[in-house]
Amino acid sequence: MPETMLQQEKIAQALRILNELQLDCWLIFVRETDEQPDPAYKLVVNHDVTWPAAFLLTRGGRRIAVVARYDDDLVRQSGLYEVVSYTDDVAPALKEVLRGLDPTSIALNYAVGDVAADGLTHGMYLQLVKALEHTPYPQRFISSGPLVSRLRSRKTPSELERMRRAIQETEEIYALINTYLRTGVSERELSALVHREMATRHLGAAWSYAGCPGVKFGPHTLIGHGEPSEIVLEPGFTASFDLGVRYQDYCSDLQRLWYVRRQDELEPPEAVRKGFEAARGAIAAAKAALRPGVQGWQVDEASRNFLVAAGYPEYKHAVGHSVGRHAHDGGPLLGPRWARYGETPYHIIEEGVVFTLELGVMTEHGYIGLEDEIIVTANGNEWFSQPQEKVYLV
Amino acid sequence: MPETMLQQEKIAQALRILNELQLDCWLIFVRETDEQPDPAYKLVVNHDVTWPAAFLLTRGGRRIAVVARYDDDLVRQSGLYEVVSYTDDVAPALKEVLRGLDPTSIALNYAVGDVAADGLTHGMYLQLVKALEHTPYPQRFISSGPLVSRLRSRKTPSELERMRRAIQETEEIYALINTYLRTGVSERELSALVHREMATRHLGAAWSYAGCPGVKFGPHTLIGHGEPSEIVLEPGFTASFDLGVRYQDYCSDLQRLWYVRRQDELEPPEAVRKGFEAARGAIAAAKAALRPGVQGWQVDEASRNFLVAAGYPEYKHAVGHSVGRHAHDGGPLLGPRWARYGETPYHIIEEGVVFTLELGVMTEHGYIGLEDEIIVTANGNEWFSQPQEKVYLV
Repeated sequence: MPETMLQQEKIAQALRILNELQLDCWLIFVRETDEQPDPAYKLVVNHDVTWPAAFLLTRGGRRIAVVARYDDDLVRQSGLYEVVSYTDDVAPALKEVLRGLDPTSIALNYAVGDVAADGLTHGMYLQLVKALEHTPYPQRFISSGPLVSRLRSRKTPSELERMRRAIQETEEIYALINTYLRTGVSERELSALVHREMATRHLGAAWSYAGCPGVKFGPHTLIGHGEPSEIVLEPGFTASFDLGVRYQDYCSDLQRLWYVRRQDELEPPEAVRKGFEAARGAIAAAKAALRPGVQGWQVDEASRNFLVAAGYPEYKHAVGHSVGRHAHDGGPLLGPRWARYGETPYHIIEEGVVFTLELGVMTEHGYIGLEDEIIVTANGNEWFSQPQEKVYLV
Repeated sequence: MPETMLQQEKIAQALRILNELQLDCWLIFVRETDEQPDPAYKLVVNHDVTWPAAFLLTRGGRRIAVVARYDDDLVRQSGLYEVVSYTDDVAPALKEVLRGLDPTSIALNYAVGDVAADGLTHGMYLQLVKALEHTPYPQRFISSGPLVSRLRSRKTPSELERMRRAIQETEEIYALINTYLRTGVSERELSALVHREMATRHLGAAWSYAGCPGVKFGPHTLIGHGEPSEIVLEPGFTASFDLGVRYQDYCSDLQRLWYVRRQDELEPPEAVRKGFEAARGAIAAAKAALRPGVQGWQVDEASRNFLVAAGYPEYKHAVGHSVGRHAHDGGPLLGPRWARYGETPYHIIEEGVVFTLELGVMTEHGYIGLEDEIIVTANGNEWFSQPQEKVYLV
C-alpha cells in the first residue's frame, strides 16, 4: 500500500475549500487512470482504478467512493473513503449515493482555461450525463476549476518536502553539468548525459523527455520548445539549460547559465553581463510585485516593463507559472492578459503557492535565460530555490 | 528530432480509414500534451505541444497543423503537416482553415465506451465549441471512436517491431524471476527485483507501476488489482505473475505460472495440473474462435463456456484486450456483453490486431493465471508471444 499522508492532507484541504466556495459536492469521475490520468485525481486518491469510478467529497465532510469490484480492495485499504462497490454498471450505485446526498451543486473536473483542472474527458462527461438521466443532478454540474486551482496551489508539508528534494536533485545534476561543459561538446551530448544521470537517480523528466533538459549553445540555437541539436559549444558562446526533474510525482524547474570564455577573457563580455543583469533585474521586479492579493498579470507586467525599459524586447511567454505535480501546475499564472492564457492571469495570488520566475534575452553570444522557484508567504514571498547570482564560467 | 517513420505509417492508415468510414475530417484538439495526453495524439504527431493546437487530417489527404509560435518549429521539422502558426489565439486561424476545407463531418477524440479514443477533455471541447461559434462546424462534430479504434488496432511494421521487443524484454525478465524464486521470498521482494531490472533495461511499466508486476503467492493472496504483499512463498504454493513492460511507447502483457514442490513431489498436484489444463483449454477455445469478421463477445463466450464445462467458475473479466501503446489498448474487446464494457465487445474483429488471451482459476494451492499475446491474420490468428505450455517448477 502506498502511503496516504499526502492524500490525507489534500483531502482535508479540499473539504475546507468546498466550504470556502460554498460548493456542496466535488465529484471525480474516472476510469483506467493509468492510461487517461485526471490531473486532480492523485491529489486525493493514492492508487489507480481500472473501471469507471466516482469519488465524492462533500461540504459536510463525507468521502464516498463508488468503485467496481477488483478496484475496491485498494480503496478500502487506503482508509480514505467509504466504499460502495458495484459489479456491472456504475450508474445505479452512483445514482443512489447522489440521491442520499442530494447536493445542490456538483463540481466536475473540467476547466476551459486550466489544463491541470481539466481531467474529465468529453466521453466520460457524456457517460455521466447518461448515468444520471431522469435525475436533477446533470443540471447541477459546474466546473471544479476554482476548487482544483486552490487545491493544487496550496502546497502541504508533504508536497513541499518532495519539491525541495526535486530541487536538490536538480542542483546536483547542474553541478555535474558544470564539470562536463567544455568547447566541442554538443547540445545533444549534454542532454544524453543528463538523461543518464536522471535514470541513475530514478528521477522522471518534469516535462517532455526529449526536451528536458532544454539545452541552448550559442547564437544559432533553436529558440522555443525545440530539442537539443548537434550544435557544439565554442568560445564566446553562452550555454543555457532548462532542467526539471520529477521526484515522487513532484517537479522542479530551474534554468542555469554558463559562458565559455575566449582566450584572454577573464569575465564575460559586456553583452552577456548586461543581458544577465537585465534578466536578473526583471525577475527582481517580479519578485517585488509578488504577494497575496495581487493578480498574476500585475507581477508579469512589473517584470515586462523593467525589461523593456532596459532596452530588451518583451519575452513571448508568462514570467511565471506554478510548479507542483506538473512543471506547469495550472491555477494562477504570472502572465500577460493574452487570449491564449484565458482567465489564468486574473487569479488572485494566495499564500503557499510555489511559482517559477523565468525569462531570458537573446544576445550575439547566445540565449541568456534565468529561472528559479519562489514561494508566496503571508506578506510577500521567499525564494524556494537558490537563485543564480553570477554567470558561471567555462 | 525523434524519428517519424511510425507516425508516417499511422497517418497513411488514418487517411485510408477516413475514406473507408466516409469521414471528411479528423480534428485532434490538444494542449500541454505532456501533462494531459490524448491517447490518439502520438500516433500521428511525434512530439509534444504546449499551447492549444489543432491537427487536421482530411479525406482528401490534407494534413494541417494549427499551432502556436514556439510549438511550430518541431511540427515543421517533422515534415508531417502543413503548418499554420498563430501567436495569441488559436480560434481565428482554426476557423479560417476549417472554412477553407468546409468538411461535412468533423471527428473529435471522444468516445463513451473506449478510453483509448477518449482523449478530448470536456474543457477543451467547450473551448472548441466557443472558438467555432457562429460557424456551422460544431453541428458537424461526431465521435472519432470508430476511426481511432481501427487506427490503433491495425498495427504497422514499426509498431509490431517495438511490441516484439517488449515481449522479448518481458521474457528475459521472467527468466530472471525463475532464478530468484524460492521458499521464503515475499511477493514484495519479487516485485522490487523486477522493478530494479526494468530500470536497468530502461523499460517503463505497462500499467500502474506499483501493481506491475502483479505477484500472487499461494491461496491467501489478494485477487484483483491489488499490489504485492508480504506473503512469502511456501512449498505447495503456486506463484503467478502478470508483467508488462513499455519499450519505446509500446507494451507487452504476459502472465506466467510456477509451482513450488513439497518434499518428494516431482510434479504439481492434481488440482494444479487440472487447473492449468482447464485454463489452457479455455484459451485454446478462444484462439479457435478468433478470426476476422467475428465479434469479440463470441471469442469470450467460447472460452467462458469451455471453462464452465470443465467445472470452474466464470472469470470476472474479458478473455482478451488489444495491446499496443497501452496494455489495454482500447478498441475491440474480447469480452462478455456486460454494461460496463459498453459497445466494445460488439466490434468486428479485423486482421492485424494484437490481443492478449488471459484467464485464470483459483485452487487450494493458489491462483493459476495464463496470458499470452496473439495476432489476428487474414484467415485466423497466430501466437505473437510464445505461450507457456507447462507449469514451471521450483
